[in-house]
Amino acid sequence: MTNERRQKIESVLSKRQNDLTVVLENVFDPHNISAVMRSCDAVGIQDIYVLNTKIPLHKKWGPRSSSSAAKWLTVHQFQNTEECFTQLRKKYSTILTTHLSTDAVSLYQLDLTQPVALVFGNEHSGVSEEIIQLADGNFVIPQVGMIRSLNISVACAVTLYEAFRQKHNTGHFEKQKLDSQVYSTLFTQWELNHE
Amino acid sequence: MTNERRQKIESVLSKRQNDLTVVLENVFDPHNISAVMRSCDAVGIQDIYVLNTKIPLHKKWGPRSSSSAAKWLTVHQFQNTEECFTQLRKKYSTILTTHLSTDAVSLYQLDLTQPVALVFGNEHSGVSEEIIQLADGNFVIPQVGMIRSLNISVACAVTLYEAFRQKHNTGHFEKQKLDSQVYSTLFTQWELNHE
Repeated sequence: MTNERRQKIESVLSKRQNDLTVVLENVFDPHNISAVMRSCDAVGIQDIYVLNTKIPLHKKWGPRSSSSAAKWLTVHQFQNTEECFTQLRKKYSTILTTHLSTDAVSLYQLDLTQPVALVFGNEHSGVSEEIIQLADGNFVIPQVGMIRSLNISVACAVTLYEAFRQKHNTGHFEKQKLDSQVYSTLFTQWELNHE
Repeated sequence: MTNERRQKIESVLSKRQNDLTVVLENVFDPHNISAVMRSCDAVGIQDIYVLNTKIPLHKKWGPRSSSSAAKWLTVHQFQNTEECFTQLRKKYSTILTTHLSTDAVSLYQLDLTQPVALVFGNEHSGVSEEIIQLADGNFVIPQVGMIRSLNISVACAVTLYEAFRQKHNTGHFEKQKLDSQVYSTLFTQWELNHE
């Protein structure tokens, strides 16, 4: 491994955030999933959760995945909502959904510097009622146009970059946040990845 | 026209911003263009500029366009850079490109509450050297991941929503900004549009 590559990996791992994640509930379009993964990588998210209760499991993602971003992420796949939420609750104190409704708050009112999991729902039906009930709150991206819907990859990127902006302003990228064992495991894995 | 529809149109037009625009330089993927247009509509942009010097003009967009967002926007198409910039300079005091380079500033350092045109370039080659020379500055969306590129529709949405956030915080959506003649013309046009 070249020095340059080692430094790149160290730099990226040192900025990975262990207190921010995305949950994709029954999102089925591979282009959307791939775009979401790129945005996650870009803002320093390491872990993402894929919960498929109504559609089949996706092909496995992992270190050797063909999706360009998946190999730099830790993808947790679930088919059972309860199991997924039990795992999420261990790491993230707040779980928020994105669902158009009257009680939704604006993205820009959220404090995204605290441990939080952000749930994005199926392309057609959105986040399920079951998940809305289990979550701690609900937000929307404000829109002032004639058309009231953003593609999920766009909505996710806008949300993650607002988290990035807030976290950057509060110093979240200034010191390593992954615990050292996770850091070492990922370093070893990433050494073997092709970019 | 129902009252509800009239109110929707009035509400949207009253929030349209006359001091923010997007320029697409030789962007060729119709899905990207369509996604950019949806984001423009969502944050209240009315005018967008399409500059095709290296690829053919796109089919005409307009009130009866099949693209869902195009019919709510005013699309200015150009094949000549100089003509395009002459028009831009009349309305926007600053023209910024998005191009990876050492002198780029972060999106989050920009003041997007002033009149500004934001140029996004071709999917493969980015913004051209000619445009970079003509523009007033260059910015990038900060990224801390292994992969260093965001899809243009994602990059554009993230940028436009940062502009939205800043403009919202400084009251840009609180009073009508379109001049009354433009407002009336658009109102008449939009009455005839189907949603």
